[in-house]
Amino acid sequence: MVTAVVMPAPGAPLETRTFERPRIEPGGILLETLGSEVCGTDVHLWKGQLAGVPYPIIPGHVSVGRIAEIGPGEPPRDVAGTPLSVGQVVTFLDVYGTCGRCWHCTVAHATTRCPSRKVYGVTLSADDGLLGGWAEHIYLRPGVHVVALPRELDWRSFLAGGCGMPTALHAVTLGEIAFGDTVVVQGAGPVGLCAAVLAQLRGAGTVIVIGGPEVRLAAATRFGADAVIDIATTTPAERLAIVRDATGGRGADVTIEATGVAAAVPEGMRLTRDAGRYVVVGQYTNAGDATFNPHLDLNQKHLEVRGCWGSDAGHVHRSVRVMARYGRQFPWADLISREYALTEAQSALEDVAAQRVVKALIVPR
Amino acid sequence: MVTAVVMPAPGAPLETRTFERPRIEPGGILLETLGSEVCGTDVHLWKGQLAGVPYPIIPGHVSVGRIAEIGPGEPPRDVAGTPLSVGQVVTFLDVYGTCGRCWHCTVAHATTRCPSRKVYGVTLSADDGLLGGWAEHIYLRPGVHVVALPRELDWRSFLAGGCGMPTALHAVTLGEIAFGDTVVVQGAGPVGLCAAVLAQLRGAGTVIVIGGPEVRLAAATRFGADAVIDIATTTPAERLAIVRDATGGRGADVTIEATGVAAAVPEGMRLTRDAGRYVVVGQYTNAGDATFNPHLDLNQKHLEVRGCWGSDAGHVHRSVRVMARYGRQFPWADLISREYALTEAQSALEDVAAQRVVKALIVPR
Amino acid sequence: MVTAVVMPAPGAPLETRTFERPRIEPGGILLETLGSEVCGTDVHLWKGQLAGVPYPIIPGHVSVGRIAEIGPGEPPRDVAGTPLSVGQVVTFLDVYGTCGRCWHCTVAHATTRCPSRKVYGVTLSADDGLLGGWAEHIYLRPGVHVVALPRELDWRSFLAGGCGMPTALHAVTLGEIAFGDTVVVQGAGPVGLCAAVLAQLRGAGTVIVIGGPEVRLAAATRFGADAVIDIATTTPAERLAIVRDATGGRGADVTIEATGVAAAVPEGMRLTRDAGRYVVVGQYTNAGDATFNPHLDLNQKHLEVRGCWGSDAGHVHRSVRVMARYGRQFPWADLISREYALTEAQSALEDVAAQRVVKALIVPR
Amino acid sequence: MVTAVVMPAPGAPLETRTFERPRIEPGGILLETLGSEVCGTDVHLWKGQLAGVPYPIIPGHVSVGRIAEIGPGEPPRDVAGTPLSVGQVVTFLDVYGTCGRCWHCTVAHATTRCPSRKVYGVTLSADDGLLGGWAEHIYLRPGVHVVALPRELDWRSFLAGGCGMPTALHAVTLGEIAFGDTVVVQGAGPVGLCAAVLAQLRGAGTVIVIGGPEVRLAAATRFGADAVIDIATTTPAERLAIVRDATGGRGADVTIEATGVAAAVPEGMRLTRDAGRYVVVGQYTNAGDATFNPHLDLNQKHLEVRGCWGSDAGHVHRSVRVMARYGRQFPWADLISREYALTEAQSALEDVAAQRVVKALIVPR
Repeated sequence: MVTAVVMPAPGAPLETRTFERPRIEPGGILLETLGSEVCGTDVHLWKGQLAGVPYPIIPGHVSVGRIAEIGPGEPPRDVAGTPLSVGQVVTFLDVYGTCGRCWHCTVAHATTRCPSRKVYGVTLSADDGLLGGWAEHIYLRPGVHVVALPRELDWRSFLAGGCGMPTALHAVTLGEIAFGDTVVVQGAGPVGLCAAVLAQLRGAGTVIVIGGPEVRLAAATRFGADAVIDIATTTPAERLAIVRDATGGRGADVTIEATGVAAAVPEGMRLTRDAGRYVVVGQYTNAGDATFNPHLDLNQKHLEVRGCWGSDAGHVHRSVRVMARYGRQFPWADLISREYALTEAQSALEDVAAQRVVKALIVPR
Repeated sequence: MVTAVVMPAPGAPLETRTFERPRIEPGGILLETLGSEVCGTDVHLWKGQLAGVPYPIIPGHVSVGRIAEIGPGEPPRDVAGTPLSVGQVVTFLDVYGTCGRCWHCTVAHATTRCPSRKVYGVTLSADDGLLGGWAEHIYLRPGVHVVALPRELDWRSFLAGGCGMPTALHAVTLGEIAFGDTVVVQGAGPVGLCAAVLAQLRGAGTVIVIGGPEVRLAAATRFGADAVIDIATTTPAERLAIVRDATGGRGADVTIEATGVAAAVPEGMRLTRDAGRYVVVGQYTNAGDATFNPHLDLNQKHLEVRGCWGSDAGHVHRSVRVMARYGRQFPWADLISREYALTEAQSALEDVAAQRVVKALIVPR
Repeated sequence: MVTAVVMPAPGAPLETRTFERPRIEPGGILLETLGSEVCGTDVHLWKGQLAGVPYPIIPGHVSVGRIAEIGPGEPPRDVAGTPLSVGQVVTFLDVYGTCGRCWHCTVAHATTRCPSRKVYGVTLSADDGLLGGWAEHIYLRPGVHVVALPRELDWRSFLAGGCGMPTALHAVTLGEIAFGDTVVVQGAGPVGLCAAVLAQLRGAGTVIVIGGPEVRLAAATRFGADAVIDIATTTPAERLAIVRDATGGRGADVTIEATGVAAAVPEGMRLTRDAGRYVVVGQYTNAGDATFNPHLDLNQKHLEVRGCWGSDAGHVHRSVRVMARYGRQFPWADLISREYALTEAQSALEDVAAQRVVKALIVPR
Repeated sequence: MVTAVVMPAPGAPLETRTFERPRIEPGGILLETLGSEVCGTDVHLWKGQLAGVPYPIIPGHVSVGRIAEIGPGEPPRDVAGTPLSVGQVVTFLDVYGTCGRCWHCTVAHATTRCPSRKVYGVTLSADDGLLGGWAEHIYLRPGVHVVALPRELDWRSFLAGGCGMPTALHAVTLGEIAFGDTVVVQGAGPVGLCAAVLAQLRGAGTVIVIGGPEVRLAAATRFGADAVIDIATTTPAERLAIVRDATGGRGADVTIEATGVAAAVPEGMRLTRDAGRYVVVGQYTNAGDATFNPHLDLNQKHLEVRGCWGSDAGHVHRSVRVMARYGRQFPWADLISREYALTEAQSALEDVAAQRVVKALIVPR
């Protein structure tokens, strides 16, 4: 039998339940879970802020496990093309079922908008099996995109980035940072911190992080931010003045929004220089409307704004490569504030909701 | 002596004044004006809606003239590198003085945001000479970017596009239309009409123009729009439904905003499909704020929004090339509703303000 | 029973054979063939110039058919997402089996380099069924990308473009033609002719086609080329001089190679201007080596060269959209020189090999 | 009087000559030279391998100086827009006179191909003044693009990169390295070493440097290369095998050529994966022809090849920003092998020609 945490419905207390160990189909994989992250999305799920969630679910969308069993027949391969075997430590893209045939997949090449995609730990139901990470085992259906962790990257380090890393990698890629650019990151949660690191790995000349609370800003500084601005003790006008002062009066070349607060978006437009670029990745749930001035904030600025949604297998593969390569420079595991047993999942959720931790992990054993 | 129309101050009636024929510096050019357009910007100037205008001014920023005199020394060259000579019919980029040395010019490669740029007919004063097109002669200072009109493009045809054409060419270029895309153009004024034509010259699969009044929508249809939607008789919800119906429920691949109405911007975001692209070119003056939902309209849509400001010499050069090449397919001069003498400039302005004409020209003689 | 043309081996005469009508799997489709093109690739196949071909094959990779039967269960959908039904006229992407899981598909987003892809009429064997177009029926396996032809585009018109159209659409897209650019197309076969048309649908200012024989150059002129250069009566130096003369001494902004001759590649580099772009799409088979000067032809020129291989479902979808929209301007069917019955396939092949025809079709009945 | 090194003619021994201290025009600047680099281009100049050089010249195109005098009137500004003053330590773009008006500047936005550009130390003559860096003073004409060195970047560190840094920054920018990519750099001279560093500042997953001699490969390793391949002890086939082994058989995602050897170009095409990108920056002089196979090396590979020529002011500005920011990680000055007095310039040239040094500086006092 396999123990897993179940979120029965929005607002209801988490439970641990036991499931039968599944039979593995050809191409399927059973993981023994090493760890699974607790992220802001899990808080949103618990508050019922996401549409289309088939409760009950097993939360946990970014996880690492050791391969315990592989389905009969030819072994599945990881994204790099290497055949997988029992004992390997792997992660996987939480998105499952992107069809490869629909208009979004084939014409628009916008696979993150494929209507068939389902997300482990989010839009796959516990009624259908071990399809979330807060569990002793995770069942990877045939076709799940698996990424093997290289020797240089231990599983805790990878989970320290968690889903924040591929999300930030997607956003920073869209930001098209040029060498020496000034990059402002709005938000100091996992996505914002990862974005601040990745901006340095694009050769940014200055990285400024706006956010809070203090524990997160301290992490930003440890991870190389040139300056941090505490959202709690500054007004938007003051933040704009600080950024302008740092940029010859021009504003940031590239701004990355990772806050989840609607009002941050018009503020971010203003923080960005004329003809700069602004990537909005933090508005994952509906946090309400915002007001802006199309003439001043968009047209006259010659501003480029890019909404960024989801990640694909390439983002996870690249995250693993980057984290493995630059671990000496950025000691990822340092971002983990605390690890929780399955039975402590409720506390983990509450600590994340209260921003008492930078990164929390569920570690089944 | 040279007669010119002068706009003495916002709201004051236009006057005709006489100026002395200027002495031509080395590298300078004196044009005998063939025609100059009347555009929405001139209405904005008259209403005092633009900042930093050194009234009195001679309006008229896009004009065509015959070279009457060239300054001493080596003759200036057009943008294509050909030496210019008396008698040639030319147009010129209204923007003068882009410095080539500032941060925007050299680092950001965003020359349209160079702080040194001045605009003929807009931010150059009549006190400094014949620096606008509604005049018998126009003085081109050394360094003005001149584009010779080829034989295949008569001056009326070029002015039928007017500043709308390079503006639209810039916007459509930013739109990165792919073959077969559905393109929605918001606005049926000169910029919108030119954008609708240029979308066809990018191989769009469907071009839908939203705007009014009827005289402009009729022009859109004559110039190849697959469908037009009258803004006066539809609600935003109805327009969204029409565009969705035409696109398998998805929305436009690319939307070009050319309206000048703030509320058009969030509407345009919604008219565009997930992972589509939205170019905002019409918010040339401050038309107030707009409200949008960052989650629904930007982030979850994976939408790209590009503010588009100004044009450069390349846009004018390319406009001339395109208009000369595709004149058989698109009979440009057909867009001209009426020509006005210098003494009729006030009527021209009022007809444009009232949208009674598609394109109005000032023709000095 | 179903009659099909079979190419038993390189060099061996074509045969007609009969096959049993296949049983249709869920998601599969049986087409009644309306027409299938004969293209240069078929000549390469017959000459044995392609590696990895599982002879015997049924040639014909781009075809149009009427849906005769659909497999049990939910009906398959076309690329635009519309459910398909018996009687509809459709084409399909000849590429089958792109995996969506490998490194090329997921990380590089280079689906045309996916090692799992197989091509109808090329790398699928007649031993495995009706997997080529020169047959009364074609069997579309589950997952084949189907594109429905709209009412405005009759099947002959679509086949007049044939595989040349999506190939050229891919190449011209990579060419990133800007408005008013001078575009040189090397080659006047189906790909070159389609590229010359598509360049006009990107707003090219001048389109010059280099190629032969006369029948093809005449087609280029009919389809809007501004100038044609006969390869048989000019030297490379003369061609360079003509292109330089037409471009103020600079060379083409964008050059598209569609010849299949190795020596055309260094020539095309020289025909292109400094900082221009050169797309090489015609080197589909190994036509030998070429010699160039990296300093003069590449580095000092600041030249961009892009090799272009294969097409994907988006290219076919977009080709259909463009051909349907611009058929009045470009009477596609005019490119068809002759139609052949199944029993005349050998003649068709020989006529194409001898360049006696612009476009040849196999029409089973 | 001012002492300067003069190269009188190709092959002739260098001389020191004295010049009068120039009168400074409005907008001009006189620098007291702190240091000037000796680079491979100086060797090419001495061997007469560049066309259009107006001997006698004062070599030295990338230099740092302290502002000794500024011309009358408004002080010139640096690229960032800050007014300059006596005593500041600055560098400058060696390219002078880019016109901003020609077709390349205005239409193609390819300023490095502007025919008016002249280069300090290369295409400006000693007969016209102190227009090269191997001198006690350098005269910056009005309009020269000046970049102030920030406090964090001492002048020796900047010159350790020298012209290799903006050149490599340009090339690596064109390489569009994605996070986690495998990057192969061909060449371990100043451009290659800088490219290997900059690849890490784009988040490359693996950086492999191919080159020699040992002193340079050791520098590559000290500066973070994951692997080095000695060109002297390997064959092209062995190098290909090593790169393939490191990339799952695929080849490099991005390859940067910085060798100056023609045969390196086809080799680099083969080292790059299908659908990868290859930047050719090292073919600064004509090193002869090369042979490649357009089918295998370009078309079927779906390869993108970009020739990279010259740098602009933005590249220098960005180089300074990057070097100032990442100096702790990359101790630039460590690349300097030796400093030479003006009277030792001949030895400097010979040491560079013999590849006995990584980076050599001329330090006037």
